[in-house]
Amino acid sequence: MLVFILNAGSSSLKYQLMNPVIKKVFASGICERIGIDGVLKHEYGDGKELKLEIDMPTHKEAIEAVLSTLTVGEGKVIDSINDIEAIGHRAVHGGEEFSGSVMVTNKVIDTMKRLIPLAPLHNPANILGMEICQELMPGKPNVAVFDTAFHQTMPDYAYMYALPYDQYTKHGIRKYGFHGTSHYYVSNEARQMLDKKHNTRIIVCHLGNGSSVSAVYNGKCIDTSMGLTPVQGLMMGTRSGDVGAGALQYMMSQEGITIDEALNVMNKKSGILGISGKSSDLREVLDGMTAGDDRCRLAVDMVAYNIKKYVGSYVAALDGVDALCFTGGIGENAALIREKVCAGLDAMGLVLDPVKNNKRRKDARDIATNGSHSRIFVIPTNEEYVIANDTYKVVMGNKSC
Amino acid sequence: MLVFILNAGSSSLKYQLMNPVIKKVFASGICERIGIDGVLKHEYGDGKELKLEIDMPTHKEAIEAVLSTLTVGEGKVIDSINDIEAIGHRAVHGGEEFSGSVMVTNKVIDTMKRLIPLAPLHNPANILGMEICQELMPGKPNVAVFDTAFHQTMPDYAYMYALPYDQYTKHGIRKYGFHGTSHYYVSNEARQMLDKKHNTRIIVCHLGNGSSVSAVYNGKCIDTSMGLTPVQGLMMGTRSGDVGAGALQYMMSQEGITIDEALNVMNKKSGILGISGKSSDLREVLDGMTAGDDRCRLAVDMVAYNIKKYVGSYVAALDGVDALCFTGGIGENAALIREKVCAGLDAMGLVLDPVKNNKRRKDARDIATNGSHSRIFVIPTNEEYVIANDTYKVVMGNKSC
Repeated sequence: MLVFILNAGSSSLKYQLMNPVIKKVFASGICERIGIDGVLKHEYGDGKELKLEIDMPTHKEAIEAVLSTLTVGEGKVIDSINDIEAIGHRAVHGGEEFSGSVMVTNKVIDTMKRLIPLAPLHNPANILGMEICQELMPGKPNVAVFDTAFHQTMPDYAYMYALPYDQYTKHGIRKYGFHGTSHYYVSNEARQMLDKKHNTRIIVCHLGNGSSVSAVYNGKCIDTSMGLTPVQGLMMGTRSGDVGAGALQYMMSQEGITIDEALNVMNKKSGILGISGKSSDLREVLDGMTAGDDRCRLAVDMVAYNIKKYVGSYVAALDGVDALCFTGGIGENAALIREKVCAGLDAMGLVLDPVKNNKRRKDARDIATNGSHSRIFVIPTNEEYVIANDTYKVVMGNKSC
Repeated sequence: MLVFILNAGSSSLKYQLMNPVIKKVFASGICERIGIDGVLKHEYGDGKELKLEIDMPTHKEAIEAVLSTLTVGEGKVIDSINDIEAIGHRAVHGGEEFSGSVMVTNKVIDTMKRLIPLAPLHNPANILGMEICQELMPGKPNVAVFDTAFHQTMPDYAYMYALPYDQYTKHGIRKYGFHGTSHYYVSNEARQMLDKKHNTRIIVCHLGNGSSVSAVYNGKCIDTSMGLTPVQGLMMGTRSGDVGAGALQYMMSQEGITIDEALNVMNKKSGILGISGKSSDLREVLDGMTAGDDRCRLAVDMVAYNIKKYVGSYVAALDGVDALCFTGGIGENAALIREKVCAGLDAMGLVLDPVKNNKRRKDARDIATNGSHSRIFVIPTNEEYVIANDTYKVVMGNKSC
């Protein structure tokens, strides 16, 4: 089944054309600067690339440009958009309404609209993507795959904030968690890699520009580090992660800024960028540290220490651990971060093999010592595959995955 | 040395008269409703009690009433206030200025005044207590013992928030931590109780109406759960503990309230009270749970789960643990909370003995199984002793403790 995967953001959209049954990608790319001018970067064949400047006043022209690029001209990989059998949409916030992937119906879109206050930047773009695909490819099934769905199995004592209870009942204020497709994919791969098949206790560190950790017991998420919104949890590229409410209030009063301005600082000017003062890209900050910049050293130490503490808390939550997994751009590539996170975790049965850790490889692998009681895995994530495969399963008749 | 210990709050003050050298308490008590009317509850002798209604328009009349009660009439324990050799003050916020206890000088008071923005309710009352004692007992040494001092040994990667760096340099926004005298006392007692004397790794859970956890390596604090203010960290009687900034922003927008109103909710209407809807007192909520109230069950589960996760994160931070300690009203008495916190921590070498855990005792004790790799202690805290003993040490010539 040929699935068109769409991840529509507010001013960009990513796409992929994939057959999930044979796990083959035919093309992928990104439209940037939608509403400004428009750039389409298209990858096809075996690593061939196209960069096109196309006017994209709205998401509609962007998606039209993608469908045209897929079917006509140099970057062509299919004869007609009729070859596309289904469309899988990354959807950010499913609230408590969606614990699995669903066929997009009017009711689903209405529910996603109701959830817009929880994800004011993401859900409108996701909905727009769905509506445009319905218009441009009438009759094709559209499936929504939610970033929050995998975390819906968390128990109440893990997802509740200790605010007055009616903040939950009136406004839905609780932890939802994000990066669900990645946490699902990686924890599932880890389960395959383990000898143990029952009561598996897996911790996934998804470390990219956005980062989160999850604790997965027997395939079900029991806790995760992001909250009602993605600003909570780990320190990230530009996001602060956990900050005390008193510190936030104090920053607002000292700076004379509003809560929206403060959240803008915490989302866009904090994290690795805010501490290092140099870059939100960990690679540049690692270079800065090597060159002797102490704020870069601090940023690196904070990133690793934060992850390490979350790992410890989830080992406690899971009553032990069978596998600790690293994924995402940082998790897959930054050997030093993995080394700093794992330093001293032997008390929890996790012993890193420094030689295996430092080997540059692209495949899923075990980097624990042979004698380590528990496993440490590096597993490249594949969110697009989860979206395509869920789309396939929903279309083939499973109502929810 | 006879030390008068004063803990001055905004509308109440606690006191104790103690000789720290022989660890003997001669009297203790509390003045309440200062500025309203005034009640003095005084304990003396072996458990005798006095309750006096005395007009206390300001803290000065309250302290005068205490000094009079100590020296005249039924509750008398000393002949004259001249018998008091030094005064030890609990001081809440020492910022980065005080990493130990100090003799109160004009400079110290000026520094504490400068730190008032960090503790707007507490520092002014503490300063008032010092100034009144200087006036009523001229020439007697006054010593300030800071709640934040013990935590000043935290490394930068533990105390920094991942906000823009200049929030730290401009405004001092970082984690400070509180309950320092308790964490110091209990971790020090635990060290005495351990066979191991070097590189000790101790976790202290101070669980009372306010609660915090600390990680103590070789006698020095390396991390703690409270932040710039005491609202951060564990869920408490009425405080929320950790809440995502996005959730806070969302609550403010949904309720149409300001940040100060939101912090008031998070400080006074959240935590055990907010979730249970019943009480901020864990004992009543445990009773509610036993009677089948599901929100009481949720509050209890959340309290225990939060503590358990902090313990796990500090086992990771300490690269293992030699002793996990419980103290404070809840920590010393709530066997069920200890049981829930320790359930499954055997993966970290901590195995609770259920029989020892359920025995009601008042002394410091080990409640781990004999075979447990690491120890689990219940240790009654004694913050007043730390204040008195630090006062003694400062007066006897150690500038800082």
